[in-house]
Amino acid sequence: MDDVFSAAASDPDVLTATAQGRLKSFIERIERLEEDKQAVMNDMKEVFAEAKGEGFDVKIMRKVIRLRKQDKVKRQEEEALVDLYLSAIGGL
Amino acid sequence: MDDVFSAAASDPDVLTATAQGRLKSFIERIERLEEDKQAVMNDMKEVFAEAKGEGFDVKIMRKVIRLRKQDKVKRQEEEALVDLYLSAIGGL
Repeated sequence: MDDVFSAAASDPDVLTATAQGRLKSFIERIERLEEDKQAVMNDMKEVFAEAKGEGFDVKIMRKVIRLRKQDKVKRQEEEALVDLYLSAIGGL
Repeated sequence: MDDVFSAAASDPDVLTATAQGRLKSFIERIERLEEDKQAVMNDMKEVFAEAKGEGFDVKIMRKVIRLRKQDKVKRQEEEALVDLYLSAIGGL
């Protein structure tokens, strides 16, 4: 990556040294977060594998989790609407 | 969720109390990991938004990150092959 930083800052087609530093920082932050995400996904895989090992059907588990998530989202949407309607009529 | 735990354990169509407890634990572990994953993805979104705010093209950044990832995977594959070939001929 060193050659990136040797580009002349006066050329409009290159980034200034500051911009290069910022870009490098952003990319590295994203890459670290990608690693975190991958670690979480690996943990999830392990939990599913453990459940499968105890005889649970992973496909059905995924469906149950999806249904609970949908239900949660729906409840939150309803609560938000209740708040909106309540505030529209001046509160409780 | 309480009604799940009141099912008779003698009925072959219901889970034993132990299995119910295990299932609940697995589902809750997955749901917590889903939340962690969502938090990481929100952080990534924020980093991209910050980069965009400084004038960087997010689409190009994603491409750069993908290229770096591919390159890393390729290098790891090559290193694994080198190790394999080396061990096949009895080491260095």
